[in-house]
Amino acid sequence: MPYPKIPLAQTVVQLFKLRNIKHIVISPGSRNAPLTIGFTQDSFFQCYSIVDERCAAFFALGIAQQIQQPVAVVCTSGSALVNYFPAVTEAFYSQIPLLILSADRPKHLLEIGDGQTIMQNDVFGKHVLFSTNLKLDVKDEQSLPNDESIPIFKNIENRVERFLGLQKDIQEFNEFGIQKSISVAQQQLGPVHINIPFDEPLYDLVDEITITPKPYKNEIKPAKLDDFQVKNFAERWQNSERKMVLVGVNYPDSIDDYVLNELANEDSVIVLTETTSNLHNAQFFPGIDKLIMPLNDDELSQFQPDLLVTFGGMIVSKRIKAFLRKYKPKEHWHIHPNRAYDTFFSLSAHIPHEPNVFFNAMLPKVTHHKKSEYKNFFLKIRQIRRTKHTEYLQQIPFSDFKVFDLVLNNLPKNIVLQVGNSSTIRYTQLFQLPKSIDVFCNRGTSGIDGSTSTAIGSATINKKQTVFITGDLSFFYDSNGLWNNYTPKNFRIIVVNNQGGGIFRILPGHKNTDNFDTFFETKHQLQAKPICELHGFQYQKASDEASLKRALTSFFRAGKKPKLLEIFTPRTQNDDILLDYFKFIK
Amino acid sequence: MPYPKIPLAQTVVQLFKLRNIKHIVISPGSRNAPLTIGFTQDSFFQCYSIVDERCAAFFALGIAQQIQQPVAVVCTSGSALVNYFPAVTEAFYSQIPLLILSADRPKHLLEIGDGQTIMQNDVFGKHVLFSTNLKLDVKDEQSLPNDESIPIFKNIENRVERFLGLQKDIQEFNEFGIQKSISVAQQQLGPVHINIPFDEPLYDLVDEITITPKPYKNEIKPAKLDDFQVKNFAERWQNSERKMVLVGVNYPDSIDDYVLNELANEDSVIVLTETTSNLHNAQFFPGIDKLIMPLNDDELSQFQPDLLVTFGGMIVSKRIKAFLRKYKPKEHWHIHPNRAYDTFFSLSAHIPHEPNVFFNAMLPKVTHHKKSEYKNFFLKIRQIRRTKHTEYLQQIPFSDFKVFDLVLNNLPKNIVLQVGNSSTIRYTQLFQLPKSIDVFCNRGTSGIDGSTSTAIGSATINKKQTVFITGDLSFFYDSNGLWNNYTPKNFRIIVVNNQGGGIFRILPGHKNTDNFDTFFETKHQLQAKPICELHGFQYQKASDEASLKRALTSFFRAGKKPKLLEIFTPRTQNDDILLDYFKFIK
Repeated sequence: MPYPKIPLAQTVVQLFKLRNIKHIVISPGSRNAPLTIGFTQDSFFQCYSIVDERCAAFFALGIAQQIQQPVAVVCTSGSALVNYFPAVTEAFYSQIPLLILSADRPKHLLEIGDGQTIMQNDVFGKHVLFSTNLKLDVKDEQSLPNDESIPIFKNIENRVERFLGLQKDIQEFNEFGIQKSISVAQQQLGPVHINIPFDEPLYDLVDEITITPKPYKNEIKPAKLDDFQVKNFAERWQNSERKMVLVGVNYPDSIDDYVLNELANEDSVIVLTETTSNLHNAQFFPGIDKLIMPLNDDELSQFQPDLLVTFGGMIVSKRIKAFLRKYKPKEHWHIHPNRAYDTFFSLSAHIPHEPNVFFNAMLPKVTHHKKSEYKNFFLKIRQIRRTKHTEYLQQIPFSDFKVFDLVLNNLPKNIVLQVGNSSTIRYTQLFQLPKSIDVFCNRGTSGIDGSTSTAIGSATINKKQTVFITGDLSFFYDSNGLWNNYTPKNFRIIVVNNQGGGIFRILPGHKNTDNFDTFFETKHQLQAKPICELHGFQYQKASDEASLKRALTSFFRAGKKPKLLEIFTPRTQNDDILLDYFKFIK
Repeated sequence: MPYPKIPLAQTVVQLFKLRNIKHIVISPGSRNAPLTIGFTQDSFFQCYSIVDERCAAFFALGIAQQIQQPVAVVCTSGSALVNYFPAVTEAFYSQIPLLILSADRPKHLLEIGDGQTIMQNDVFGKHVLFSTNLKLDVKDEQSLPNDESIPIFKNIENRVERFLGLQKDIQEFNEFGIQKSISVAQQQLGPVHINIPFDEPLYDLVDEITITPKPYKNEIKPAKLDDFQVKNFAERWQNSERKMVLVGVNYPDSIDDYVLNELANEDSVIVLTETTSNLHNAQFFPGIDKLIMPLNDDELSQFQPDLLVTFGGMIVSKRIKAFLRKYKPKEHWHIHPNRAYDTFFSLSAHIPHEPNVFFNAMLPKVTHHKKSEYKNFFLKIRQIRRTKHTEYLQQIPFSDFKVFDLVLNNLPKNIVLQVGNSSTIRYTQLFQLPKSIDVFCNRGTSGIDGSTSTAIGSATINKKQTVFITGDLSFFYDSNGLWNNYTPKNFRIIVVNNQGGGIFRILPGHKNTDNFDTFFETKHQLQAKPICELHGFQYQKASDEASLKRALTSFFRAGKKPKLLEIFTPRTQNDDILLDYFKFIK
């Protein structure tokens, strides 16, 4: 097996192998050739080639989102690297481990006017958990061109021992930087950046590896739960008459049944879930917005919890945030191994553990329950909403809302559902999905910029069929997401095309002026068909209930290519239909 | 005329108007609604709506490149902003003034888990010349939610005077930040970032403006040339027997005829120009690579200058850089008002003036000339190369090289030629273009990421017809560049489609293995036709000399739509044809 000749490239590749980092998403370039050669020559690695770095990073994020292990992206020097930034921010806030490897010019060729060169070192600033700028060799660290005519340089060469000593220090520095990057990404969950200088020649190969990096010693001990604290939490738990458990983005099947059942069976507990919570129980409250938006002042007061317990990632519902910021709980605990945001300005405890660990320790210590009408009162309201919801959907014309009803109720079982941002996730939240559907959405930054790439990355690694629902702007924004050779044939995209940013019609803007159409809604007449032609997707379309129902009967069936279904909805009616819904279900 | 109600939005918009910033490229969003309303309601501004922020920023850069005045981009909060980063780096290194306006959440809603929120303040780090984080109001600066039940906040409200005082300070701080941003972008030439927090409600309007910002006082005096220094430079100039003037990216018609003639008429001066230098004189040396690549050691030594004088932006030719780093001049002066890179490790003087200012002052002080064979010797070699060049092109088969020959020799006169990066600019450099063609290329970072958007931005503002030549990878990378309503009908794109990154076949890689094809060349079978369908371009194609010649007879003629000509070349032959050229012209 050939290896890259450059020792630093060998070091990176060997350590990644030692640490079991398998998935490497590579964008083409010359400066990163030593890494590309190293990764692609070793069949241990599963390498992917994606040209557009913005897509490449989101694709990698999609894989990492599924395997919950770090995935690497590798790019050349220059502006290539900052095309990763949108995915880096998403990974940072979604707490998804990404290892960003950027090839760079050696130090003495930086900031001297060479092409494809920017100041790569630490370019992601606060949006990575760790960054390291590896060192090429002693010569480069002296910032000298590789030119023996320069006296200072000669001087160093002559002092062989000192030189070798420094070289050893550099090797240690580099190994430490790589090891630490991987550890941070794995343990603290998020993006890290390894910047790697390479000098020419970049393409040379050797038959034998010349570098044997030291193996990794994991010295991190898992944090222990303090018995006294657990007892204290249990007391506060059992003394609260109204406990609200609010779950953000949560990986499917990650919470123990025991925990879910205990929470479900307690009358003083309301568990609010979102589509992205991936939690299902008849006693839980999915569809937060439709539950609380029509509540009157008296009901809102009754809904105010004494104790709010949150876990998981970001919360989609703006209404629950507004509610809890106004009707503050006495206490708010957030359970998460690493981070706790004070989303409701009432955070009283960050419990730095996995939810399972905490609940499994605390719940058995709960000795009695307060009598409470908290849950039952709102279960009745939940039932009213559900009846009204069904009634409303039976009477509305073909529209975004109707489309989501038809599509979500006709999804196959046992799939991964990737949901686009903006309107798409908000509509989806109004429906209850069956337990067998695993839901994902880029809620770290809630951007429309990389959902397609993320969905395809996810689809390549998950054996279940992946279905991706997206709006038109988000789809066209990331249409390069389809530009790769890895999309599985059973991958499906549903584009709800309302000819613009429909969400702006729902927001309190100034509709139906030229300015609004152009600068807010950004009205357009694009269709997804040419994109399908370009990238080898089978295209189907629908523009009314009959054609949509017809399309849905065959759309999920096996085919020779991945498929895309584009559904055209009436641009100017969608907003009223949604806004009327919230009045109707009251 | 309605105005945004939020005073900070009024302040920004009013100051931009005062400072004559006319072109505003807006991407849709809600948080930036106060700015969008402010800019679009006032007919003083020319506003553009572009959804994909990566394209929007390059589009703005294209306008700024032409008008040489700051152009603004406006986006919403969250990851939207970092999609600007590739264009920001290009603007930084190409010294193009860009004003980046990002809407942000108010301070008290940052880092608490709200959606579409990242740490926007100073997110571009060293790649902007200046950044300012404007302040919303006193309440927000106290980082408190807008909730009067909080005692500290009440306290401040009660102390009205102090409050108004602080509010005035904040207004002054904001005005200063905006004014300074514009000044820095204009004077130091490059990107600046203004981060602007807005709180809800975002869409409220008022009929009367409530803010009257102070007008701007320009207190910058232009740097003066020191007579003594000029004399000193003139002496060193006239005492050098071999003077090389190397010109990087240079705006058309920016150098005075007097200066050009003086340089051209002097036997001791070799003026090396690149396609992007936009300088033309029969005595100059365009086509640097073809001149120097076949030189033998003796000729190379003769080519070594005593004095190297450079001006303009980045140099494309890698060979001249390698040459000058090896055959260092005794002195290297770089003439530029702001920046001087030590590209050849021999910079001895940064002359901080416009080239015209410096040469117009120095050249008249030159009293005598050394007798020199420097120019004449190489003019002879130049002639040999030209003859061989023509001979070679007559004998080669249809290929990338042949395509550039045919296309460049059949361009209309008086056009703007935008050139894509990588192979495209390198092939273009081998040809001499007539003076009437103004050439531009994103050589700041030399990325393939935004050339299409830049070209279209440029085309919207320049009255001349714009022709854009690009490779296939670069074209598909930035295909969203076509997604806008501003592309003029006479805009033309020529895609040289060699089914992958042809440049990698020229570099010293390991050709014709699966790994090479996939991870370096990134071979593909995409065609531009569907993209044309999607975005309303007329599509033409050619795949041999006859069809190309035919296409070129009509392609530049007026039509109802912008047009794209896709030229397919034989992927596996292009590299040999180019490499053989350099052997042939020896």
